[in-house]
Amino acid sequence: MAHTIRDKAKLLARVRRIQGQATALEKQLCDETDCGAVLQQIAAIRGAVNGLMVAVIEGHLTDHVVKEADPAQRQQDLDVALGVIKSYLK
Amino acid sequence: MAHTIRDKAKLLARVRRIQGQATALEKQLCDETDCGAVLQQIAAIRGAVNGLMVAVIEGHLTDHVVKEADPAQRQQDLDVALGVIKSYLK
Amino acid sequence: MAHTIRDKAKLLARVRRIQGQATALEKQLCDETDCGAVLQQIAAIRGAVNGLMVAVIEGHLTDHVVKEADPAQRQQDLDVALGVIKSYLK
Amino acid sequence: MAHTIRDKAKLLARVRRIQGQATALEKQLCDETDCGAVLQQIAAIRGAVNGLMVAVIEGHLTDHVVKEADPAQRQQDLDVALGVIKSYLK
Repeated sequence: MAHTIRDKAKLLARVRRIQGQATALEKQLCDETDCGAVLQQIAAIRGAVNGLMVAVIEGHLTDHVVKEADPAQRQQDLDVALGVIKSYLK
Repeated sequence: MAHTIRDKAKLLARVRRIQGQATALEKQLCDETDCGAVLQQIAAIRGAVNGLMVAVIEGHLTDHVVKEADPAQRQQDLDVALGVIKSYLK
Repeated sequence: MAHTIRDKAKLLARVRRIQGQATALEKQLCDETDCGAVLQQIAAIRGAVNGLMVAVIEGHLTDHVVKEADPAQRQQDLDVALGVIKSYLK
Repeated sequence: MAHTIRDKAKLLARVRRIQGQATALEKQLCDETDCGAVLQQIAAIRGAVNGLMVAVIEGHLTDHVVKEADPAQRQQDLDVALGVIKSYLK
């Protein structure tokens, strides 16, 4: 079973948290809240998105690379994750 | 007028784009979509959040530091942005 | 006096630390050290470079933007730092 | 043969480039060069360090995870890289 299915509930909880944070940010902008608070809210969303990314990358590398018996499939699945990892390491 | 008020429509459009991306990600997880696509979607949200952060930081530094006549207020407003900038530079 | 002159000794100490770390990394590669240690050493250099960047950006924004009396010069000096900040926020 | 040995010459060339950039930065600070140029030089070093990190992480994940026959060893070697990847995804 793929990690995104096994961990579906936990991952969905993370996504819904991000949705809640984005809705709160939307309200801050509508209410013309002080921009220091807006900056903090965007930083909080960024932290939540990074946390979600770590969880999915770790699951992907563990399930689709470490636990994959076929070396050729391991390489293909590594390439999928490497594209995202490299975007962070720029 | 503060930049988050002057640029309210543009900033809200960015936030609503992020909300749409998060809803699409939620559907991917519910539909048990391939995790390569999930990784790409999270990376897209990350890019949109970073773009929003750049817009607000630039607006903050321009309106509340460059255009601020009082040096003491400039320092206070710089400190607000520095906290967020440092979190990126770790 | 510009911050890079006022803080010259502290900044040079940071640069020399990075030079020492790079020399240690060079030796690790020459000695064919375990690549886990090599990864850690590169991460240490990255941390030191980021720390140096924070120190110089903070000094630049404080001295050349907050303490600058002329608004037009403040904008020019902000633009110098924004280019670097944006490269981190991608 | 481990990737850091196979790719020793290429990796050492990257390290020596970083050493050259750090020496140039040292001279900029000693010569009290304009801090805009100093910021650019630090950004260049950061880019070179990130490029070196990508090369070593990719080599590590390919040689020690994808090409490793033993699943338990694959997991250990993944954990080494995950520690560094997570530091970037904070």
